[in-house]
Amino acid sequence: MRISQLSAASGVPIPTIKYYLREGLLPAGEQTAATRAEYGESHVRRLRLIRALLEVGRLSIASIRKVLAAVDDENLSMHHVLGTAHYAIAPEIDSHPGDEDWQRARAEADRLIDDLGWQVDPEAPTRDELAQTILTLDRLGLPATGDALRPYAEAAVNLVAEHEINTIPLDGPREAAVEALVVGTIVHGRILDIMRRLAHESVSARLFGIDPAENAGPES
Amino acid sequence: MRISQLSAASGVPIPTIKYYLREGLLPAGEQTAATRAEYGESHVRRLRLIRALLEVGRLSIASIRKVLAAVDDENLSMHHVLGTAHYAIAPEIDSHPGDEDWQRARAEADRLIDDLGWQVDPEAPTRDELAQTILTLDRLGLPATGDALRPYAEAAVNLVAEHEINTIPLDGPREAAVEALVVGTIVHGRILDIMRRLAHESVSARLFGIDPAENAGPES
Repeated sequence: MRISQLSAASGVPIPTIKYYLREGLLPAGEQTAATRAEYGESHVRRLRLIRALLEVGRLSIASIRKVLAAVDDENLSMHHVLGTAHYAIAPEIDSHPGDEDWQRARAEADRLIDDLGWQVDPEAPTRDELAQTILTLDRLGLPATGDALRPYAEAAVNLVAEHEINTIPLDGPREAAVEALVVGTIVHGRILDIMRRLAHESVSARLFGIDPAENAGPES
Repeated sequence: MRISQLSAASGVPIPTIKYYLREGLLPAGEQTAATRAEYGESHVRRLRLIRALLEVGRLSIASIRKVLAAVDDENLSMHHVLGTAHYAIAPEIDSHPGDEDWQRARAEADRLIDDLGWQVDPEAPTRDELAQTILTLDRLGLPATGDALRPYAEAAVNLVAEHEINTIPLDGPREAAVEALVVGTIVHGRILDIMRRLAHESVSARLFGIDPAENAGPES
């Protein structure tokens, strides 16, 4: 297809497509004449993925380039490609390896992951995220030990193992898997947070014996 | 205690305490002389809550005033006080009641909450949040029906009913309950998100048969 058709098929404007081509995010089309190139389905898929990384993942162009390089690297297993995407969408955190409190929190995070029997790379930045949140809990005087965090770990792993992993198309093109992972992690994370707050209200209403009719709107 | 002792007990600097007094967030102490006031434990508790709302909840002074008014209103049940705090920390969203897509998404959200048998106020802003995320899923071409969202609802309600509700001290001063709710909702929400991404990595490593030794750091 021509660049105009690629634009129509992907919903990405032609100047943006040209920008991605210049930045090397989108591979060049097949040159069929001096001013003419042919694009295929792989270009449509790649554009979908770039949009998801940009609009849902809110990644920088530099981070997108890193994720796409992993997608294109035939030597990387699917597990490592997905891992690259996961690490790219994780929030940046300030680790303080020299700080004593930080080391304690990080050791607590590592111990918890070990106790759970989870297989997580020792260099995963997610471990630092967990350490930072343990520090926050500590600072607020809230329980931050493995016992306090275990219910969250169990809820998470059940959800992932029984449901989420099946929503990622692992047998198709890598672009599709990475797109599903990024969008799923972010948008379903938002869903889970909303459900949790809705569930809080419902459980509280039951606990305090709120009459459902009292909840039936302003006219009741 | 004197204002200097209140500052020491709460960790809040004196000028900040004076600011809260002027803004009416903190009730005045008992005037014991023209330039001297006595403060008590309730002031320490109130300062802790203000700090939690400000630093963890990132609420504006206006929103904090609303939450504190609910805490102080003897006519409101604990359920409604907690609800006020929940709604205050929810992200602002743009609802578009005139828009047809919006109405469809909102109806889908309401239907899902009904099907779950959850007791949620018809005016809860959380319903709009759910509708907005359903719209996002739709726009991305991802499944957004009740069936697709139910696993998240189930994970959330189990976590809340079996664990989270018990972490809120419901039989003490209301300030303590609201503080635990706000801090718990936000920081434990972060924990849940991190656990979910850690679980993803672990489940993926198992699925793709990654050798744990391969994960044992750069020297392996």
